[in-house]
Amino acid sequence: MVVHQLAPTAWFTTLGPHQPVLRVRPGDAIVAQTLDANGWDAAGVKRASPPNPMSGPVFVEGAEPGDALGVTIEKIVPTRATGWSRAALAHNVVDPDFVAALPPRDRAQWRIDPVRAIVELQDAPPGAAAIAVPLAPMIGCFGVAPAGGEAIATSSSGPHGGNMDWRGCRPGATVWFPVAVPGANFFLGDGHAAQGDGEICGTGVETACEMTVTLQLRKGWRIAWPRGTDAAGRFTIGNARPLDQALQHATTEMLRWLLEDGLDAVSASHLLGQSVRYDIANAFNPAYSVVCRIAEPNRPAAAE
Amino acid sequence: MVVHQLAPTAWFTTLGPHQPVLRVRPGDAIVAQTLDANGWDAAGVKRASPPNPMSGPVFVEGAEPGDALGVTIEKIVPTRATGWSRAALAHNVVDPDFVAALPPRDRAQWRIDPVRAIVELQDAPPGAAAIAVPLAPMIGCFGVAPAGGEAIATSSSGPHGGNMDWRGCRPGATVWFPVAVPGANFFLGDGHAAQGDGEICGTGVETACEMTVTLQLRKGWRIAWPRGTDAAGRFTIGNARPLDQALQHATTEMLRWLLEDGLDAVSASHLLGQSVRYDIANAFNPAYSVVCRIAEPNRPAAAE
Amino acid sequence: MVVHQLAPTAWFTTLGPHQPVLRVRPGDAIVAQTLDANGWDAAGVKRASPPNPMSGPVFVEGAEPGDALGVTIEKIVPTRATGWSRAALAHNVVDPDFVAALPPRDRAQWRIDPVRAIVELQDAPPGAAAIAVPLAPMIGCFGVAPAGGEAIATSSSGPHGGNMDWRGCRPGATVWFPVAVPGANFFLGDGHAAQGDGEICGTGVETACEMTVTLQLRKGWRIAWPRGTDAAGRFTIGNARPLDQALQHATTEMLRWLLEDGLDAVSASHLLGQSVRYDIANAFNPAYSVVCRIAEPNRPAAAE
Amino acid sequence: MVVHQLAPTAWFTTLGPHQPVLRVRPGDAIVAQTLDANGWDAAGVKRASPPNPMSGPVFVEGAEPGDALGVTIEKIVPTRATGWSRAALAHNVVDPDFVAALPPRDRAQWRIDPVRAIVELQDAPPGAAAIAVPLAPMIGCFGVAPAGGEAIATSSSGPHGGNMDWRGCRPGATVWFPVAVPGANFFLGDGHAAQGDGEICGTGVETACEMTVTLQLRKGWRIAWPRGTDAAGRFTIGNARPLDQALQHATTEMLRWLLEDGLDAVSASHLLGQSVRYDIANAFNPAYSVVCRIAEPNRPAAAE
Repeated sequence: MVVHQLAPTAWFTTLGPHQPVLRVRPGDAIVAQTLDANGWDAAGVKRASPPNPMSGPVFVEGAEPGDALGVTIEKIVPTRATGWSRAALAHNVVDPDFVAALPPRDRAQWRIDPVRAIVELQDAPPGAAAIAVPLAPMIGCFGVAPAGGEAIATSSSGPHGGNMDWRGCRPGATVWFPVAVPGANFFLGDGHAAQGDGEICGTGVETACEMTVTLQLRKGWRIAWPRGTDAAGRFTIGNARPLDQALQHATTEMLRWLLEDGLDAVSASHLLGQSVRYDIANAFNPAYSVVCRIAEPNRPAAAE
Repeated sequence: MVVHQLAPTAWFTTLGPHQPVLRVRPGDAIVAQTLDANGWDAAGVKRASPPNPMSGPVFVEGAEPGDALGVTIEKIVPTRATGWSRAALAHNVVDPDFVAALPPRDRAQWRIDPVRAIVELQDAPPGAAAIAVPLAPMIGCFGVAPAGGEAIATSSSGPHGGNMDWRGCRPGATVWFPVAVPGANFFLGDGHAAQGDGEICGTGVETACEMTVTLQLRKGWRIAWPRGTDAAGRFTIGNARPLDQALQHATTEMLRWLLEDGLDAVSASHLLGQSVRYDIANAFNPAYSVVCRIAEPNRPAAAE
Repeated sequence: MVVHQLAPTAWFTTLGPHQPVLRVRPGDAIVAQTLDANGWDAAGVKRASPPNPMSGPVFVEGAEPGDALGVTIEKIVPTRATGWSRAALAHNVVDPDFVAALPPRDRAQWRIDPVRAIVELQDAPPGAAAIAVPLAPMIGCFGVAPAGGEAIATSSSGPHGGNMDWRGCRPGATVWFPVAVPGANFFLGDGHAAQGDGEICGTGVETACEMTVTLQLRKGWRIAWPRGTDAAGRFTIGNARPLDQALQHATTEMLRWLLEDGLDAVSASHLLGQSVRYDIANAFNPAYSVVCRIAEPNRPAAAE
Repeated sequence: MVVHQLAPTAWFTTLGPHQPVLRVRPGDAIVAQTLDANGWDAAGVKRASPPNPMSGPVFVEGAEPGDALGVTIEKIVPTRATGWSRAALAHNVVDPDFVAALPPRDRAQWRIDPVRAIVELQDAPPGAAAIAVPLAPMIGCFGVAPAGGEAIATSSSGPHGGNMDWRGCRPGATVWFPVAVPGANFFLGDGHAAQGDGEICGTGVETACEMTVTLQLRKGWRIAWPRGTDAAGRFTIGNARPLDQALQHATTEMLRWLLEDGLDAVSASHLLGQSVRYDIANAFNPAYSVVCRIAEPNRPAAAE
């Protein structure tokens, strides 16, 4: 396995048909240095403009429209001892009549402590209890160039992936994206040291990272939305507003996948109906993200 | 503790200001015989009309508008060896362009096997693999009379609870409802032997049950939406369409609860932003249901 | 034609299976004295509690579930020289990030001037230009008892009508409601001297009125949502959230109506696709209202 | 006034930072030959691929980010005697349970008759009545390059305009777009000979056109969404899903505009609350479009 270093000096804030900065083969690994959502690097130096400057694009040899690009997340290591977040819930996740009661959306600083495996708020309000959450690094934004010649902002998401902000995009997960341009044009960045469901403060704990991924190619696998697998089973991701439409996209994609795998529509309905799990990955971005998850069809779902 | 038997001979398909059939005191337990969603009883006899005929209402001594009624789910035992479900995904949970490809929404029969703790499809399509999911009984529909003299159909839900269809409404959970009429008028029924998130076939595995709950009263606890606790922490439930609005209701209610408990708004935002979990309880009913969950503020969230 | 006076001394804030206060026959007229949305009468005396206290219910002889009740609005005369409204846009009709910049939702007073046929703001902010809009009385809330034994708050709406707040519910329009209980149980009230689309301040210019309507019955006309006719053609009203779903209800109901009248589905699609008009009647209430309108199929649509 | 001919030989299916094909000055006019939505030209020859191939981009001298580009629609003349549409309602505009009953979405042919000023269905189903609607040419898709380096598909819309499909984009209207790149990069195309609200068949009557527009520049006029004026007053356009969010964008933009023009927020609220009109321009595209309209603040609204 060839391991490529991706330590760019220029970054993109759209996923689109940009000039690749690295060429790899299926099976290769990439070790990418990524900036945080605001463009600060491992040393805390501002290197690029927000939102979510991407490392890449990576040209994958042999990738053609109609294929799927598999991205296995091997490792995500924050390269800075600090991350930041917004200090208030986003205005769109509370009742409209409650918005005016929210605190200002200041930036708050967190300390990332790999030894204790926690992320701890540094500038807690006076008198407030310490706030800490488990260190759980994830990729906020990654994906491929969209179809139709589009270049989509890294603040948003779509069939091509992008800013899906799902905490399940963590080591152990493999995410497949629909290849829409020759070479796929793979991008990644926007690491979070931690994040709740929905990214409801509008940020996770944003930090610079070293992300190690391996790429694989499945020829002629036409998928409509990102699909993937992890220890819990398989998943599909729908990106749209409202959440209802994101759920429709993800559910339809999962049903299509089960049918492709030979399940009949009635059995697939039963399986999903009585054992599906949904994650609200993101409820802040221009497009929201809903994840549809099931245990592998041939393994019984675990009681929870 | 007094234990009351609730084995009614008449049922309601609205939650409203109906004449109570049982009077209890806070602290008492109720053992309720409930019909399935279509009105079939433990013996498979049709006793009432759909949807979701309720056992109750129960008058709780001392309950007044402005109080909260706590319902601890002690035990849910299916009283029939069979349950039923719809055999196709609901039309509203897939992309509109995919609807015509769905199979018919026939009724399918499941065998409930308490020994193996599974629920198994009886009439699987010919050649199809066996389908079984863990036995995980839950309450589909329960709650209190709504405010303002409303009587709301048991197909829907609202601030008063109702048909929320959250698989988390299972033994071990305590759900609090806002009391809106003297005596609260508590109803329950619509047991499911199993159900995935979202109730996306439009049903769980519907069956008759014996449900054991204990009731408690918290005087002057004004809540806007159902709140509760379980082994994982605390939760709030928002009921509305689209899912976005249900999420807003649940999130706002959780924020209010944390503020009432003395957390400042910034700390509450941080806690929620970096550790909240959402469940999509129901994406089928006239009002959808989203659950906002966090670990107890004074306990660190578990990594997952 | 018999003309009945409806000048009640008790009012309802739900549409439901309440005891009728008046019995009429199809073809009869009703002259109803109605309170404003807050319960103030023609003399400015508080007679009932909000929201939208209703006059009625009226029992219509011969009306049975499965029939439709037609309500022709003959006349709406404000019985007070003043009306009131909220002085700020509702929080849900602006971008969440703009909410905090809205002014307080105070109550503002308007003068109703039938001679000049305008409604004029009385307490305009100092230095502000005079604000006046045409006097255009309409019914905010009317309808029948819902199906299934429900009693629905007069703040909301549904298949039974209710608080639809469409400015098209004005003299000259006939609105048909699906009868769900024997006698129909017809209610009306909540007059507005004027209102824009969407009722985006959360109120029109609310006032007490004398409303004259005539009732007719169409036996065995099973409709799912309110339908009607006016000088511009025919219309259907869908009530739900989000607006997308209200639009789906209204469009489906219009398509059903055209098919019932003998149009084939392709012709109906063409007619709607190239000449439909939508009104956003209400974007404030718990259920929003969208109106689907077309010219009569046998009359060409007017260019606009 | 300089009049430029724009008769391109290459077309774009994204609005983005493409190489301009024409340079003009503010005040100049453009006479553009446009293809229909599928890429057919005036002679019925396929010249480009769908969706909505655009003529342009046009570089406007002096246009800089932060300016607004005004596009006055002078004339739209179909250059073909035929147009086409889809023969069935789109799946997303009816209730999900009604989708399977819709006819196939075939392409239907219409005759454009400028003498009688109508558009007439050519291939009506056998036995069906003739279907004709007034000839009312409009621009389906036009706008400028988006901000942030995005290239957005001509199937969708956003702050930059794009595929808004509002029947009000017709001669007499001036639409202002927010300039996001030097020169603005103005595109236009996708003419419709007629269309109802919402574009609910997924098309208008699609045809090739000659579109005459004049351009003007307003320096330093920072607008967030398209704004415009026509004989009825002023309007703003919001593009998003669901319709609720499109309405929020349009309403907020109108409120901002009124505040910029010196109205206080309370007066603006009153004016909008009691006299606003909304058009549902499009309910089919990836982003829906809602138009917020008012008469000029200093002119009283007409009764309707």
